Amino acid sequence: MSFYALIMAGGVGTRLWPLSRRHRPKQSLKLVGGRTMFEHAVDRIAPLFQPEEIFVVTGAEHVEALASQAPELPTENFIVEPEGRGTAPAIGLGAVHLHRRDPEAVMVVLTADHFIADVECFRRALVVAAQMAEEGHLVTLGIKPSSPSTGYGYIKQGGLCGEIEGFSVFEAQRFTEKPSPETAFHMVESGEYSWNSGMFIWRVDRILEEFQRQMAEFYVQLAEVEAALGTPGYEAALRRVWPGVEKQTIDYGVMEGAADVVVIPVDIGWSDVGSWASLADLLPADERGNIVVGSHLGLDTEDVLIFSTEERRLIATIGLQGVVIVDTEDALLICSKEQEQQVRALVRELEARDEKEYL
Amino acid sequence: MSFYALIMAGGVGTRLWPLSRRHRPKQSLKLVGGRTMFEHAVDRIAPLFQPEEIFVVTGAEHVEALASQAPELPTENFIVEPEGRGTAPAIGLGAVHLHRRDPEAVMVVLTADHFIADVECFRRALVVAAQMAEEGHLVTLGIKPSSPSTGYGYIKQGGLCGEIEGFSVFEAQRFTEKPSPETAFHMVESGEYSWNSGMFIWRVDRILEEFQRQMAEFYVQLAEVEAALGTPGYEAALRRVWPGVEKQTIDYGVMEGAADVVVIPVDIGWSDVGSWASLADLLPADERGNIVVGSHLGLDTEDVLIFSTEERRLIATIGLQGVVIVDTEDALLICSKEQEQQVRALVRELEARDEKEYL
Repeated sequence: MSFYALIMAGGVGTRLWPLSRRHRPKQSLKLVGGRTMFEHAVDRIAPLFQPEEIFVVTGAEHVEALASQAPELPTENFIVEPEGRGTAPAIGLGAVHLHRRDPEAVMVVLTADHFIADVECFRRALVVAAQMAEEGHLVTLGIKPSSPSTGYGYIKQGGLCGEIEGFSVFEAQRFTEKPSPETAFHMVESGEYSWNSGMFIWRVDRILEEFQRQMAEFYVQLAEVEAALGTPGYEAALRRVWPGVEKQTIDYGVMEGAADVVVIPVDIGWSDVGSWASLADLLPADERGNIVVGSHLGLDTEDVLIFSTEERRLIATIGLQGVVIVDTEDALLICSKEQEQQVRALVRELEARDEKEYL
Repeated sequence: MSFYALIMAGGVGTRLWPLSRRHRPKQSLKLVGGRTMFEHAVDRIAPLFQPEEIFVVTGAEHVEALASQAPELPTENFIVEPEGRGTAPAIGLGAVHLHRRDPEAVMVVLTADHFIADVECFRRALVVAAQMAEEGHLVTLGIKPSSPSTGYGYIKQGGLCGEIEGFSVFEAQRFTEKPSPETAFHMVESGEYSWNSGMFIWRVDRILEEFQRQMAEFYVQLAEVEAALGTPGYEAALRRVWPGVEKQTIDYGVMEGAADVVVIPVDIGWSDVGSWASLADLLPADERGNIVVGSHLGLDTEDVLIFSTEERRLIATIGLQGVVIVDTEDALLICSKEQEQQVRALVRELEARDEKEYL
């Protein structure tokens, strides 16, 4: 069995503004453990893959930064999308690249913007998933929910397909989009749901078959790109085809209607580090509940998250509780923890005002 | 009558940290109207005095910055204290300089760190005060209280001495230090008290007479300095004498026990700009009660004061109420308005830690 990894590294991570920017996307940020999110993503799978088996799909503007973070990866393994069209086209493009190497290859789809605490367990799960994928199943890694989060999609577990190496493999019965708080509560309580981690394992020919069946127009577009692969006309073909590709997520476009999907619920200390609050969960707090990355002097200050890229700037706080402070060279965010979800709205406002230097 | 102004410009303005620093004291800050506090102080009296009649007493470390703000003042009019010993020694040193020019000169003692909205009324009051001073009275400008502030000293008005040019002149019956809230309330309600503005007008020989009577040791020290005035030994004499000078305020040291003190209550839109809150009173707020000097984007933000020296840095706030944010190149303060008085404690903490770069 040939086995490849495809790391999706195309997003920006809007909710981590002002640290995340178009020119400094989330996957290039050192949020945890002194390594960038992309470096963590590569490190995690290094024991399972040779560098030439690890592929990255991203935008042209990010290639240079990502390549410098993983110089061991061959240059040609960075697959460049002319522009982001959602996860389905990104995965499709990666799949045709791998298909040309080995149509029966098993590919692991991973993201560069998640954190995983228990990497050893994660790798064992991938090995089990690869076995299932080789048999023709579309495998998803489900995350055992630690809270009734309304920020994730959920996967309903159906019948048990088997127990392998300590992992239970279930038929995936239904994909559910981000639920209401009440629905989330009942789903988690039932014990029958996993969070959708966005990590998938499948044979290349199987996922292309699903694209053909469920996203027929895109499949034709993909075929045109694949025909040009390895020829001098590849770039031109991609640039010609891509603007006509419809935006779509892999969940909507493929997984919800796919045949023979299985889910492997795992407990690997996963976090999507999707917001300042979720980053706070990963960093150690002092006895007053303050988390500080930077230089801080506080009086009567509790439950604050301070994240600064400016080492020599002192951040002094007096009488603050429940606040997120993010200090960067050219922009400062001060946000009540209760309204942290508004960071996205703030970035939209900057977009509406066309304040490019802060985007 | 010869008439001189002595502007005291020696303080730092701790409560305006992190804007105010040892190297960037309050009198050099552009807090209001695009001019520094010192520039405002000179501008205010320019119609009353020739440049050579305006003297400044300050520390050696501040002379260059102040001189560049008022290049029209003769260099020799900057009287340098080897180190600050409080307002009494600063005024005494200024007085001996003026005494040598004209023992019967009238001197106005002013500060460089107060704001006055109605400068025309202020100047008319000074002219009246100078008339009273020429007759031998020690004159203080009292401020008609706008609130029962516990942050100022108070002066009790005794008998009415006269009405001159629309100003009432009272015998000053008693100087009171910063009162309790209840005492302040009763004092303001009685209508018999003014705030002590720290602005005085008197004949040079009269104030030296009071130093001789009430601060005899300092008077001897002053005499030693005066004897050296105009000789090559002046600097050496000052450096020899000054370390032995006791710290003292003019209020404690002289005014409380002085004979023939009068007070002229004035309503001139005076503020000591002693804290971020008092600065906020001087700046226009938008419809949400926000005062912004700098670049700001706020969601659900009310009653905040933002003061930034970093024009190109964006300050974004979400879900904040009642907060002061002061952004400077190397230090940032975020402080609940309710605990604003703690800024001084924070600076003390920096001193205790010997964090010189932030002092």
